[in-house]
Amino acid sequence: MLPIDQPKEEMANRLQKLQAGMGKLGWSGCLVTQNVGLYYYAGSMQTGYLFVPARGEPTYYVRRSLSRAMTEATVRVAELESFRGFGLQLERDFPEVFGSEVEAVPIGADLDVMPAQLYVRLNEAIPHARIVDGSSLLRQARAVKSPFEIGKIAQAAEAAAKALDAGISRLKEGMTELELITIIESELRRNGHIGLMRMRGYNQEIMTGVVAAGDAAAEPTYFDGPAGGRGLSPAAPQSVSRRPIGRDEPILIDIGCCIDGYVIDQTRTAVIGRLSPELTTAYETAEAILRHSESLLRPGTLPERLYADALDIAERAGLSERFMGFGRDQVKFLGHGIGLEIDEWPVLAKGFRDPLEAGMTLAVEPKFTFPGVGVVGIENTYLITENGCRPITLSPERLYVLRAD
Amino acid sequence: MLPIDQPKEEMANRLQKLQAGMGKLGWSGCLVTQNVGLYYYAGSMQTGYLFVPARGEPTYYVRRSLSRAMTEATVRVAELESFRGFGLQLERDFPEVFGSEVEAVPIGADLDVMPAQLYVRLNEAIPHARIVDGSSLLRQARAVKSPFEIGKIAQAAEAAAKALDAGISRLKEGMTELELITIIESELRRNGHIGLMRMRGYNQEIMTGVVAAGDAAAEPTYFDGPAGGRGLSPAAPQSVSRRPIGRDEPILIDIGCCIDGYVIDQTRTAVIGRLSPELTTAYETAEAILRHSESLLRPGTLPERLYADALDIAERAGLSERFMGFGRDQVKFLGHGIGLEIDEWPVLAKGFRDPLEAGMTLAVEPKFTFPGVGVVGIENTYLITENGCRPITLSPERLYVLRAD
Repeated sequence: MLPIDQPKEEMANRLQKLQAGMGKLGWSGCLVTQNVGLYYYAGSMQTGYLFVPARGEPTYYVRRSLSRAMTEATVRVAELESFRGFGLQLERDFPEVFGSEVEAVPIGADLDVMPAQLYVRLNEAIPHARIVDGSSLLRQARAVKSPFEIGKIAQAAEAAAKALDAGISRLKEGMTELELITIIESELRRNGHIGLMRMRGYNQEIMTGVVAAGDAAAEPTYFDGPAGGRGLSPAAPQSVSRRPIGRDEPILIDIGCCIDGYVIDQTRTAVIGRLSPELTTAYETAEAILRHSESLLRPGTLPERLYADALDIAERAGLSERFMGFGRDQVKFLGHGIGLEIDEWPVLAKGFRDPLEAGMTLAVEPKFTFPGVGVVGIENTYLITENGCRPITLSPERLYVLRAD
Repeated sequence: MLPIDQPKEEMANRLQKLQAGMGKLGWSGCLVTQNVGLYYYAGSMQTGYLFVPARGEPTYYVRRSLSRAMTEATVRVAELESFRGFGLQLERDFPEVFGSEVEAVPIGADLDVMPAQLYVRLNEAIPHARIVDGSSLLRQARAVKSPFEIGKIAQAAEAAAKALDAGISRLKEGMTELELITIIESELRRNGHIGLMRMRGYNQEIMTGVVAAGDAAAEPTYFDGPAGGRGLSPAAPQSVSRRPIGRDEPILIDIGCCIDGYVIDQTRTAVIGRLSPELTTAYETAEAILRHSESLLRPGTLPERLYADALDIAERAGLSERFMGFGRDQVKFLGHGIGLEIDEWPVLAKGFRDPLEAGMTLAVEPKFTFPGVGVVGIENTYLITENGCRPITLSPERLYVLRAD
């Protein structure tokens, strides 16, 4: 089995931060049920539940595989005796939490991802708990990354840069979007991509990203991002299609990679031949938004400011209707936190008013959509530092222009 | 955008079947929120909710992308006006369901996948509904496949067979598991694999399967299957690792593929050199279980019978402790329904007593785990026919023995 991969001291810090948050909210404990949350707090994602009391040591109750959890976990592991008896087991192990109360005690849980059926059953199994929505705390607590985590994202950035190079070096007119992503994914995988990327949002899925050209790239979709792509079927309605890539049309290469659980997200635009003046202007506007965003990416900036300013720049360029999708299919953000999941907090969107902090990692992705024509844009993942920011993305930042034969 | 891909008449049959089920349970309607369910009943998986009344036509309330849903869907599409106003919109559109009642009416929903947060909010937004757990009905209703669906699974089988051949043709000693799966996945993708496979179970994930050799294959994991694999990290604790594949050890190649939403699942065992007599016997026992299972795979058989009989055969061979995982990490099933999700119903497990029916598609996967040594086994996906069954899997059924140089 694989050894513990996360620094023990860091794991203790994470738990302390969570407990401090619980204290402010008046919760008696937190129940983590989602695999990503388990990995973040227990160092393992075996099937089970992690109970973190407001004070003291947590216990990770594991159903399967117990032996694997015992090897991997950085916290105390116990066998989950039975689902129905989980409440009794908790009362026995945490008398200070559940023992002396007359009323049910408030316990936060990851209700944004936990299925309703499990929620109902947990409420029955733990009658002394009143399960409340702990999603916001759990998402906030993960926003600032440690050097260990940043190192993992940087590894993913390296693999993504290699994969982009592999794709660009073999890109040619007439190749389908599917053929292009096959080359890119193969390079990602060879470099350690775990084979999937995690999104927290319900029904949100991501392959390795969106690789799409011309009108296919500009098609709207449910995917919670600025560019969807035609996809292969109504059952896979995003990213690549079997459409051949033509000359003089924008090719959007928005790819991610997941190494040891941590993801990167980056976008580059390519063209075989040349872009029209209109698309060139839009691409340059995306670059201008990125430059302006970089000047704001520092501790203290409110995340919503970046979106508001980007909207202004797009509007001054006469491109507001095409910014981050077209018309009613626009998304209302400029970027997003990134780490164990693609869609972490903070979001660079209206309403996100907790100031940026050093250690946060954010993907910033200004894009412009021209229905029937294509999507242009650029995306880097950044680390917020003490004084500003630095890109984690390694790919050279430019429009990739290939000669049409 | 992509045109409608599912036969209209078939879509009507699906809704009729669901409505018949609702009638028996006394529900006034059903609310489908999960992407796979939306695709099954509405032909599109854009973000929104499908409301199916117990009688009459359903409406698909779409938030994004409305234009795409209108192109793809086979049912009536309406814009979801606002989440908070969803209850009012439903009352206006379905006065016969919500209008005349004094009490809240029972509405089934997919509570096994719907997040608890959404469940709580939907209960608030639709005060005239009493949302009940409709998971069982929704899962049962999909168990029997149409010729259209079977055709899609057969396409996935073809891609999987090609990918296995590609992997086997380039398999050699010293290659890592990661390198082997990279070859396989590349071939799957080239042939139209959508880039992900869907599982319904909470926290369950699947890359394209488990490709693992020797002791790494035999490591236990949370994955709800008989063989997990070491994985690349505690954050990806299943399937491939960076372990080199050696000679004389079993190489488990359990791969899936998803074409237009439909998945196949198959396993073959390979070896470079030769298997020990003990592993050879176990492999032959897996084949014997498969042969016996085929004799039972026909309309009328109770799914649990297949598991019970398989256990008997394993026990007679002295292999019960190693059957479907080792010791306490065993899973308690022999196979599972398969279609839009990998983990469909029925499961070949104790408690599944609704008889098999023609049109059901099932993956049957007897495997034996030898900790520290490896996993051997075989898996085919079958279609239940009027008189028996036929394999959909196309790969030749044999132990793949490669010469060690």
